[in-house]
Amino acid sequence: MRIDVKKSPMEKNNEQAKLNRELLEGKGIFVLNLMSSPGSGKTTLLEKLSDVMGKTVRMGIIEGDLATERDADRIRAKGIQCVQINTNGGCHMDAHMIRKVLDEFDLDNLDLLIIENVGNLVCPSSWDLGEHKRAVVLSVTEGADKVAKYPTMFRKADAVIVNKIDLIPYINFDINIVKEDLFAMRPNLDFFQVSATTGENMEDWCQWLKGHLIK
Amino acid sequence: MRIDVKKSPMEKNNEQAKLNRELLEGKGIFVLNLMSSPGSGKTTLLEKLSDVMGKTVRMGIIEGDLATERDADRIRAKGIQCVQINTNGGCHMDAHMIRKVLDEFDLDNLDLLIIENVGNLVCPSSWDLGEHKRAVVLSVTEGADKVAKYPTMFRKADAVIVNKIDLIPYINFDINIVKEDLFAMRPNLDFFQVSATTGENMEDWCQWLKGHLIK
Repeated sequence: MRIDVKKSPMEKNNEQAKLNRELLEGKGIFVLNLMSSPGSGKTTLLEKLSDVMGKTVRMGIIEGDLATERDADRIRAKGIQCVQINTNGGCHMDAHMIRKVLDEFDLDNLDLLIIENVGNLVCPSSWDLGEHKRAVVLSVTEGADKVAKYPTMFRKADAVIVNKIDLIPYINFDINIVKEDLFAMRPNLDFFQVSATTGENMEDWCQWLKGHLIK
Repeated sequence: MRIDVKKSPMEKNNEQAKLNRELLEGKGIFVLNLMSSPGSGKTTLLEKLSDVMGKTVRMGIIEGDLATERDADRIRAKGIQCVQINTNGGCHMDAHMIRKVLDEFDLDNLDLLIIENVGNLVCPSSWDLGEHKRAVVLSVTEGADKVAKYPTMFRKADAVIVNKIDLIPYINFDINIVKEDLFAMRPNLDFFQVSATTGENMEDWCQWLKGHLIK
């Protein structure tokens, strides 16, 4: 007698994520899953990262959006290998979507692969894509209460990047509330305060990425 | 022979949404589903609406969040009937959640019920809660590309409220891109540009709501 247990979509995803991680590790590529609300500045952060990091690190980027190639166009204009995934309305990316586009990269000549997830502070947190680390971007204009109100996303983060700090003088935002909520949840979290627009503190985040590259 | 067709969660939701709408219409209550990304300023918009509208309209609010009672506390401090729904990690509210809390309101003494959905520019657009109209808030700090990148949400909107216009001088934001993308999709959309912080143009949105109340 054989019992076929039907696997859930999440189980299938996790199996594929493991395969993705093994494949990319085998190629010596460090993978970051970058998540946030819509409009927190993820793409601008990656554009600026490219400026700061220069050609010292061979970077590839996967862009995830419901629609349009706009983000991929911005990244390619920086001379970076980039593939756009359109989820056609879907609220997150999954490990199978990632696997399908990996062959479009020159994997033998990459050190770092960053996956810019769909802008959504809820659903993407449940889906392992095969990444080594997760970074969540929080822009100051979203307000200091977001960690407490969207705990699932922040509970699984390895790093949090507070972005748009150049706008703090014009809004009501207390960074200490963010820090208290975050470190109560994740005492060993890596924490950055940057402005992708002005470039402030971008070097710190760049160093963090470099420190995680596979030797 | 009887064939039982198992209903999908979406079908069950739509049936309950219809019942919610009939119940609330029977009580003469206009229902608005208010949606946006996290941190676009929905709660501040409702606080300011309460100031502008005063006691001329009897308003109730349902707050939807993954966690915390923070938004409901802010609304109640304005003297408004408010019930908090926590989705415990869920990315949207559904019609059954709404039905469960309706009896906590004094429905015979309400003119307007606003449902502040979970901050998410994707998933809530698929779930009818029993509302009469949908309004989507877009804050200028999210960037002018959001309509094109998150079309599902905007395609189903009856009104779009561009918020935080007081911050336009400090950022790179072209309102014409938003308008072009929106009106290409929804030519008859109602469109507002407000600052919930300074109160600018809040009266226009308030008048729109008053115009939709059930006589």
